[in-house]
Amino acid sequence: MTTNPERPRTYASAGIDLAARQAVISRYKEIAKRATGPQVIGGIGAFAGMFALEGKYRDPVLVATTDTVGTKGKVAALAGRYDGLGRDIVNHCINDAFTTGAQPLFFLDTIVSGDLSDEAKVSLVSGVADACVEAGVVLLGGETADMPGVYVPGGFDLIGFILGVVERGRIIDGSGIQAGDALLALPSNGLHTNGFSLARPALGIAIDPSRDAEDRRRLERYEEDLGETLADALLRPHRCYLQDLRPASAARPEVEPALSDSPELAEGEGRPGGGGEVRPPADQPISRLAEVPLIKGMAHITGGGLQENVPRILPAGLGARIDKRAVTPPPIFPFIQRAGRIDEAEMYRVFNMGFGMIIAVAPEDVDILSALVPEAVVCGEAVAGSGVRLG
Amino acid sequence: MTTNPERPRTYASAGIDLAARQAVISRYKEIAKRATGPQVIGGIGAFAGMFALEGKYRDPVLVATTDTVGTKGKVAALAGRYDGLGRDIVNHCINDAFTTGAQPLFFLDTIVSGDLSDEAKVSLVSGVADACVEAGVVLLGGETADMPGVYVPGGFDLIGFILGVVERGRIIDGSGIQAGDALLALPSNGLHTNGFSLARPALGIAIDPSRDAEDRRRLERYEEDLGETLADALLRPHRCYLQDLRPASAARPEVEPALSDSPELAEGEGRPGGGGEVRPPADQPISRLAEVPLIKGMAHITGGGLQENVPRILPAGLGARIDKRAVTPPPIFPFIQRAGRIDEAEMYRVFNMGFGMIIAVAPEDVDILSALVPEAVVCGEAVAGSGVRLG
Repeated sequence: MTTNPERPRTYASAGIDLAARQAVISRYKEIAKRATGPQVIGGIGAFAGMFALEGKYRDPVLVATTDTVGTKGKVAALAGRYDGLGRDIVNHCINDAFTTGAQPLFFLDTIVSGDLSDEAKVSLVSGVADACVEAGVVLLGGETADMPGVYVPGGFDLIGFILGVVERGRIIDGSGIQAGDALLALPSNGLHTNGFSLARPALGIAIDPSRDAEDRRRLERYEEDLGETLADALLRPHRCYLQDLRPASAARPEVEPALSDSPELAEGEGRPGGGGEVRPPADQPISRLAEVPLIKGMAHITGGGLQENVPRILPAGLGARIDKRAVTPPPIFPFIQRAGRIDEAEMYRVFNMGFGMIIAVAPEDVDILSALVPEAVVCGEAVAGSGVRLG
Repeated sequence: MTTNPERPRTYASAGIDLAARQAVISRYKEIAKRATGPQVIGGIGAFAGMFALEGKYRDPVLVATTDTVGTKGKVAALAGRYDGLGRDIVNHCINDAFTTGAQPLFFLDTIVSGDLSDEAKVSLVSGVADACVEAGVVLLGGETADMPGVYVPGGFDLIGFILGVVERGRIIDGSGIQAGDALLALPSNGLHTNGFSLARPALGIAIDPSRDAEDRRRLERYEEDLGETLADALLRPHRCYLQDLRPASAARPEVEPALSDSPELAEGEGRPGGGGEVRPPADQPISRLAEVPLIKGMAHITGGGLQENVPRILPAGLGARIDKRAVTPPPIFPFIQRAGRIDEAEMYRVFNMGFGMIIAVAPEDVDILSALVPEAVVCGEAVAGSGVRLG
């Protein structure tokens, strides 16, 4: 084979500077120290993170999911604001894991990019750590993949993995949903992390690199219809529903007998509805835990909107009827719709349109849920059939 | 704001076809069925995967790590061979997690790409599933992020996340390594998943898209010096060391008393070196488990070579002396070195150079380890100081 005197002889000349990489990794470690906890064993820098499960679980079920910020990153890059994306990906993953009733334990992030600056990477990791701290989740590790020649200039993605745990008897999975059960919505605060591949061309932003300067000006301009700048509206971090919904995820205070009074439960190992040895977490306002979780199912409204996400928790033979008017979409949605001349039906197929989470409870439990989660509004019900009928 | 009649009115016209996406997701689900297990609760398609821990762990420590195939993907794309990358990322993650002694339980993958074909994506996921099956690991979930405008044509990455578990008393973390302990190497089978950002420019392959046709011919040409094609040599999947090292990870058969004979251990909960209730796995050839793992530390030789990876398991005040000649680098390494006129020192700073895993044991345990892991060869020792001295 031929040799070429122009070919690089070092990793650095090939675009990978191991010393610079070590320097930024040291900064990640400093950041991660903010989001650690007593259950972490060993330090960051090992080949894998270690986390002591503890907690005296009778029959622990591990819950895991992964997601990415996707092309929301393109808008963030244009605006030069990377820190919100860390919160986006952490909260997205927490919400997904929490649909099972799981307590999220730890998170790992991966940054893949070509030419992303060290400052931007540190900003991403810093946002991840902040969101982890807020949710009481440990940032257990991460990876940064430098990939020259794979991304367009400024292109990157931020990928998250979360691990949670739920007592088997406390799993929330929608399997108990019946026709007539109530559906309640918790509002979103904007696009969250989905729909940017339609929002960008609809707004004509972050599409054509030759117009970056103009796009930046538009992003930072105050928009009367939004009551804020487009950048603020588009980049508002994905809302985390953990704190709002945790009080309702395990408790059903009206049901008797409570577990601690029921002698049979000592033998109930592995039994659905069991879990008598589980102690309520310290922040749990309900003094007695009942056998059946109050919430029957939770759907996190992400890519594909209500139509794709609500059926993910419905048993076969059931669909949903949802009243759009129960939730007013935040102003960014009509703004995108007008700019892109998008049909309303398509808007609901792509975006969350203000529906952040859908919660299914028995009709008689609506009042209890509303007391525990004041923001939840009834928006529909489970019905015989399939799919989602939007009225 | 202005509206533009050319702007897309649907997600599909923006490059995202939700129906096509659902079709490929159905294929992922079929593939994932091959790599499931009785511990999985619920199906793929939920917002998060659920995995029953079971196993009667006394004090379980969860072990997690994430990595990507990086620019090995560029060579795979050029050759049109995607299936090996699934094995790459699964095995890379398993090896990292296994450095702690953890049994890997489940894996999740994320594919990020712009224009990657459905066939390529399915091939990636299929390779992931095959590697999971081979290692007895469950494929618990995954994500595909379609990101138009972020990647160069054909650009993508495959990210993996693994979760394992280890009994606290059986953690392998290098903390017990002392000066004079032996270092043994298990051979690599090539580049594994690291160093492609130097290998590509050194070989002049997968750098300039205008030369793709010529690069493809070079990749598929038989190379006398390699005894195979360059594509075969470069794309050989990352070797998995789980099966080779598992027999040695928990056992130290020469040490007495074995745990099952030691009455004090019933109270030893959470104590380092405890774990009396742990039963050896069915494939464990050693009948009695001893208190101290035979292996003191394991370093997976990934990006940064021996110099960066061996120190990750060494206690403060210790370095390593390693004899390069203990392991003959596979032919792909001198091939890259000649083509790129790379210094040998730089080769060892970037590539694994034939060292796949480094294992630290007490000098008196070398024979036991060699009996359990016949491929392991003594390559050096831990010494006072810091860093790695390559002789």
